[in-house]
Amino acid sequence: MRGVIMHGPGDVSVEERERPQIVDPTDAILRVPAACICGSDLWPYRGIAEMDGPTPMGHEYVGVVAEVGDAVSIIKPGQFVVGSFFASDNTCEICQAGYQTHCVQRQPGAATGAQSEYVRIPLADGTLVATPGEPDPELIPSLLAASDVLGTGWFAAVAAQAGPGKAVAVVGDGAVGLLGVLAAKQLGAERIIAMSRHEPRQKLAREFGATDIVEERGDEGVAKVKELTGGLGAHSVVEAVGTQESLMQAIHSTRAGGHVGYVGVFHDAELPVSELFFSGIHLHGGPAPVRRFLPEFIDLIWNRQIDPGKVFDLELPLDQAAAGYQAMDARQAIKVLLRM
Amino acid sequence: MRGVIMHGPGDVSVEERERPQIVDPTDAILRVPAACICGSDLWPYRGIAEMDGPTPMGHEYVGVVAEVGDAVSIIKPGQFVVGSFFASDNTCEICQAGYQTHCVQRQPGAATGAQSEYVRIPLADGTLVATPGEPDPELIPSLLAASDVLGTGWFAAVAAQAGPGKAVAVVGDGAVGLLGVLAAKQLGAERIIAMSRHEPRQKLAREFGATDIVEERGDEGVAKVKELTGGLGAHSVVEAVGTQESLMQAIHSTRAGGHVGYVGVFHDAELPVSELFFSGIHLHGGPAPVRRFLPEFIDLIWNRQIDPGKVFDLELPLDQAAAGYQAMDARQAIKVLLRM
Repeated sequence: MRGVIMHGPGDVSVEERERPQIVDPTDAILRVPAACICGSDLWPYRGIAEMDGPTPMGHEYVGVVAEVGDAVSIIKPGQFVVGSFFASDNTCEICQAGYQTHCVQRQPGAATGAQSEYVRIPLADGTLVATPGEPDPELIPSLLAASDVLGTGWFAAVAAQAGPGKAVAVVGDGAVGLLGVLAAKQLGAERIIAMSRHEPRQKLAREFGATDIVEERGDEGVAKVKELTGGLGAHSVVEAVGTQESLMQAIHSTRAGGHVGYVGVFHDAELPVSELFFSGIHLHGGPAPVRRFLPEFIDLIWNRQIDPGKVFDLELPLDQAAAGYQAMDARQAIKVLLRM
Repeated sequence: MRGVIMHGPGDVSVEERERPQIVDPTDAILRVPAACICGSDLWPYRGIAEMDGPTPMGHEYVGVVAEVGDAVSIIKPGQFVVGSFFASDNTCEICQAGYQTHCVQRQPGAATGAQSEYVRIPLADGTLVATPGEPDPELIPSLLAASDVLGTGWFAAVAAQAGPGKAVAVVGDGAVGLLGVLAAKQLGAERIIAMSRHEPRQKLAREFGATDIVEERGDEGVAKVKELTGGLGAHSVVEAVGTQESLMQAIHSTRAGGHVGYVGVFHDAELPVSELFFSGIHLHGGPAPVRRFLPEFIDLIWNRQIDPGKVFDLELPLDQAAAGYQAMDARQAIKVLLRM
C-alpha cells in the first residue's frame, strides 16, 4: 500500500509500505478513502518539533473496517467509522468524564499513519464510532474534519463556555479557529468575533456564523474586541494558534470571570502567572477529547446541519501529498484533503 | 486614633493618626473593633513586595458604621458590617456575574488601612453587607475571617468545583488553605486531603473536615494524592500558597478534566504552557470576589454553622501589632487578631 513518510524538515514522500496487521486483539484495520494534513503536521515539517527518524504521517482518519481483532465486539468489518487522534477505551473513569484524550489506556490513534491506504487503530471498540450507513461521498470531507479539526475547534468553544447570550472571540483563522466559529454558532452564541486578516478565511468565518471580523492583532486586536463588547471583553475566547502571543491576546480579550478555551499546540511558551491571576479568567483546554463529541458530530453531519468539510480548500491525490504540505506551509491552503 | 504603619521591611509600629473623613459621597467611615494580619501583609514585611513610603496596613475589616456620605442609601450609621479588600459597586455587569474584585469601579476597600481604630470604605452600598443585628462578641473573629481568608479559601474551593462525590486536595496550610478545607466540607466534598506537615495545622484541618493528611511535598506529595485517588489524582485542587512549585504541585495532583482553584498571590512565577496544556485541567482563580459570598457567610456564621474564626490562634491588643507580625512571619501563629 502507499503512505506518506516524512524524512526530515520539508521532506515528505509517498512510498510503498507494508499494509498494517492486527497486533493486539483490540485492534481494527481500516481502509482509508481520504486523509488530510493537519496544522500540527507542519511542526516537524518546519523543523520546530523533532522527529525520531522517518515517520509515517497523519492522525486524522475515517475509513471502512477491513478487519478486527478477536476482542473487538462493537465495531464490525464493513462499517464506515470515524475515530480520533488518541485511542481510548471509553470505559475508564477519565473517559466517562469526557476526557478520552487522557484515557488511562491512551495511545496514538493512528500510530501506523493515516495518510495511507490502510491504518491500524488500537482499542477499536472505544475509539471508533460507526456512521448510520455508507456515507454519500460528499459527506466524507465533513466526517474527516470531525476526526480532529472540528472536534478541536468544538472542544475549544465548549471549554470557553460559548453559548446563548455570550460574545465569543476566536483567535486564529486556521481550520481549527474557523471550526471554533462554527461550534460557537451551533452552541448558540449571540455574537462571534473572528480575528483574521485573510479575505478567504474571513469569508468562511462569516459562512460559519461570525458576526464580526477583527483584523487587528496583539494589543490593537484586544482593544477592538473590548470596543465590540462594551469595554469589558468577550465572555468566551477560543485560542487556536498555540503561541505565547496568541494566548496572551486571548486572555486579555476575555472579561473577568470569562472563559478561555485553548487548543493550539504549545511549544516553549511560558505564561506569567500574576497576569493570569489578576485577569480573573477561567482557562481550560489541551488535546481535544474528540471522541466525546463524535456521535453528535456524525448526527449533525449526516443530517446536513453542519458542513465542516468546507475547511478543505485544496484536494489532491495521495501521490501529490508533498504539494499539499507545501501549500499548507505557505498558507496557500487552509486545509488539504488527500484522496486515495 | 491609633493605626498600624509599615515603614519598611520588618518595621511596623502603631501610631497616632488622623481619623479618616468622608471624601466621596459614596464613602462610609467604620469604627473597627478588631482587625487582623494577612499572609499578604508579610510580602512587604519580608521585602518581597515593594512599598512606596510609610504605608497604613490592613485590608480585612468588620466594623460599626460611624458615618456615611450623602449618596449612601442602603448602609446606615449604627449597623455592624462586613466588607472585603476591594470596594465594588455591586451593580455593574462584572459584579452581577459574581466577580466584584474586577468591578468596573474597583478600588482598594480599606485604602486608609484597616489595622486601625477607624477606616474609610469607598462605594459603601456596594461593598458592605450588614449583619442581622449587633453580633455576639464571640462571632467577631469569624465575621472578620469572612472579610478575606474565608472568602479566599471558599472561592478557591468553588473555583476548584469542590462538591458532592469529589476528592479535593488542598495545597497550603495557612489560614486560606485551612478555610479551603472548611469550604470543601460545606460544599459537600466526599474526601478532603489537606497537605500539611505542621501538627497544629493538621489538627485544625481535621476539625474543619479534612479526611486525609499528606505530609509529603512536591513530586512525593503528588504521588501520595494519586495513591489516595485511585491513581488518577484529585477532582478538585485548591492552591493557596502562590509559588511556581505549589502551583505545579496543584496541577500535577489534579486528574485530567479536573479543576484547580488558585488564590495564592503570585510574584514572578511562570507557568510552562505545554505542561498545563497536556494536563487537561481547568484553571481558575485570582483575587477572590469575597463580596459574592458575604450574605451566605454572614448567615452561616450567625447560625453557628461554621466557625472560621478558629484560624486566629493569637490575639493581641492593637498596640502589640509588631509582635503579631513577628509571630506570623516566624510561622508561630496561623493568623493574628488585633483588638482595639
